[in-house]
Amino acid sequence: MTTLENDICDIARRARVAARSLVSLSTESKNNVLRLMAEAIDEQRDFIQDENQKDLVAGKGKGLSSAMLDRLELSDSVIASMRNGLAEVAALPDPVGEISKMTKRPNGLMVGRMRIPLGVIGMIYESRPNVTVDAAALCLKAGNAIILRGGSEAIHSNRALASVLQGVLESQEIAADAIQVIPVTDRKAVNVLLNQEEYIDLIIPRGGEGLIRFVSENSRIPVLKHYKGVCHIYVDADADLQKATPVIVNSKAQRPGVCNALEGLLIHRDIAETYLPVLAAELKEHNVKMLGCKKSVMIAPEITPAMESDWGTEFLNLTLCVKVVANMEEAFSYIDRYGSQHTEIILTENYSNASRFVAEVDASAVMVNASTRFNDGGELGLGTEIGISTTKLHAYGPMGLEELTTRKFVVYGQGQVRQ
Amino acid sequence: MTTLENDICDIARRARVAARSLVSLSTESKNNVLRLMAEAIDEQRDFIQDENQKDLVAGKGKGLSSAMLDRLELSDSVIASMRNGLAEVAALPDPVGEISKMTKRPNGLMVGRMRIPLGVIGMIYESRPNVTVDAAALCLKAGNAIILRGGSEAIHSNRALASVLQGVLESQEIAADAIQVIPVTDRKAVNVLLNQEEYIDLIIPRGGEGLIRFVSENSRIPVLKHYKGVCHIYVDADADLQKATPVIVNSKAQRPGVCNALEGLLIHRDIAETYLPVLAAELKEHNVKMLGCKKSVMIAPEITPAMESDWGTEFLNLTLCVKVVANMEEAFSYIDRYGSQHTEIILTENYSNASRFVAEVDASAVMVNASTRFNDGGELGLGTEIGISTTKLHAYGPMGLEELTTRKFVVYGQGQVRQ
Repeated sequence: MTTLENDICDIARRARVAARSLVSLSTESKNNVLRLMAEAIDEQRDFIQDENQKDLVAGKGKGLSSAMLDRLELSDSVIASMRNGLAEVAALPDPVGEISKMTKRPNGLMVGRMRIPLGVIGMIYESRPNVTVDAAALCLKAGNAIILRGGSEAIHSNRALASVLQGVLESQEIAADAIQVIPVTDRKAVNVLLNQEEYIDLIIPRGGEGLIRFVSENSRIPVLKHYKGVCHIYVDADADLQKATPVIVNSKAQRPGVCNALEGLLIHRDIAETYLPVLAAELKEHNVKMLGCKKSVMIAPEITPAMESDWGTEFLNLTLCVKVVANMEEAFSYIDRYGSQHTEIILTENYSNASRFVAEVDASAVMVNASTRFNDGGELGLGTEIGISTTKLHAYGPMGLEELTTRKFVVYGQGQVRQ
Repeated sequence: MTTLENDICDIARRARVAARSLVSLSTESKNNVLRLMAEAIDEQRDFIQDENQKDLVAGKGKGLSSAMLDRLELSDSVIASMRNGLAEVAALPDPVGEISKMTKRPNGLMVGRMRIPLGVIGMIYESRPNVTVDAAALCLKAGNAIILRGGSEAIHSNRALASVLQGVLESQEIAADAIQVIPVTDRKAVNVLLNQEEYIDLIIPRGGEGLIRFVSENSRIPVLKHYKGVCHIYVDADADLQKATPVIVNSKAQRPGVCNALEGLLIHRDIAETYLPVLAAELKEHNVKMLGCKKSVMIAPEITPAMESDWGTEFLNLTLCVKVVANMEEAFSYIDRYGSQHTEIILTENYSNASRFVAEVDASAVMVNASTRFNDGGELGLGTEIGISTTKLHAYGPMGLEELTTRKFVVYGQGQVRQ
């Protein structure tokens, strides 16, 4: 074993021991620690910002873009948002210990399923150091130990934040190993981490497609993936067009750079000729650049012809693909082929079409008459989230506290034996 | 691509297409098909048994043990049990389409989570050809397509069973590709199958530890593992010893060769001197061979000294490890170290100890005053199962119909946009 392997293995082993001790922590203790962490982040602001400054200086030296530097900066407002995040997680209900579906078997056994922590979670992410605090808070509340591996450009910031959080854990006599940051930037550390299946229960990668692909191809530990978001809206022949326009504009233009922004619009041919010109003019007002199928180009002069490679592209900017479809079946086929199982919307007043769309479309969130932007843990009522899973196992859609837990069977008997 | 790669890839691609068509299948159609399959298995008994005979003859030629040949045989009683299994699955409630937790958000959006099929499931198993029918039935009821890869020694039986099931699917105009058997015995087929992450959503291996380890190390698709069952009973100082003895005997001796049989007994030192001699005599009556710690050996002459390698062993026979512990904490440490997160039991009348044991022990099923043998899908009320998961992601414990599904978010709006 190399020193690096030894060090990472030791971190993972200590996380496992810490996780064991978190199981019996009361909700009150967890909430108290989270509130103390919020205070500590505020009180130790100077230390955190000094360390952050080292990353910013190094980042400028390495020529990071101003957008990258912006995401790296722990400004007063980012610190305030981390503080609020900690308080919000403290206020959420504790999922651990809940027993659902307690039923009585014919032999008198009482059988239920109790929600329990997953154990140890490894988080691999890029850039934004505030993820360190947000992820640690959610994992701690769900009773899990966390190992954090941020981007090398944020190493000083991440280490500083972890040391503040660990200080609070120690002050409350809770295992400080419950929150650990990989202290080295060596890229091999990720590979070693991904092999610690004996100690780590789940890996969550957050970042670009390249990072996520690398992690899922190299991990021996289960991975919850958050791939790209290629979201569509299908405007049915029976759509209420008064409602449709603001929903489409909001989906595309409110925040185009995020995964739940709209990338493709499908419109029923029966309304295309009348509605598309109105919509295209409105979208142009919002600086949306439209690429479309032949039919759409003939209908609205604002639309330019799309290339085959445009369909299914996650633009993350103000570009939108538009396609006229003959019926809902054609919309289904298009979504099957070009969608990313993230968010799919139907705009309609037709009861049967709404029901079929909801039942048959395969995506983490399927909605009727609402903006794609609602596929978000906060908006859907999970409180806060650690990412949006587009794979189906364990979690599909925004991952909140509940998705950071699992359930075991609990059985209460009076001496029953099996026949 | 080799011909083999091409063939397996084609099977997986066709399964994906079939899975798409199963989503809109009504519960009535699924149940009807399952009942017709039960009839077909019965009607085509001669064909099935003739094909099974080829496997039995080949197995004898290869020198398979009589136990192996016994498991391979599709006797009249095995056919009857497959038939009953199909009828049982038809009678279970359909998990697909259920919407749980529909709540209203402040902006009026109705948000719920709808249970949906996983998609395509790959099943890799050894020996028993009846698994082909049992697994196909559960997957079909949950709306999934299944690709089955049984042992090479059962190839004729598995192909025959699949062709009978596919015949019924065709007669009902349901995609026959929903149930496919890998028709070749080439071992490389498994590796190719484990790389079809584009088409397959989940791999379930069933068999010995070697098979499961191979599958999880080589799969790029999520795997639900069913590792070994090293189950313990902790006899607390406050146990009701009248209840304890039959539970321990049942756990160990009723069917010692299965994963939910008892392998280790922990006994509180305060009752060891009085209870262990009584228990040891009773276990000896049931031909249980006891290996124990020094203290236990001194107390009961039936117990012989255990070697370090005995602790944590899955014996799968009438051998039992016995250890005297100072308190419940020592039992926790022992279970942490030697348990396999399968089934852990406390026998006690003490309310606080029962509560702590249930809350803190990490296993797929944790029980009070009941036999380890109850960790089984049928016994816990799941109807029937496809294995017992001892990994925590997605499913922990017996996997029934619900564990073969996932949930997507469904949102009903009236034109809401995000602020």
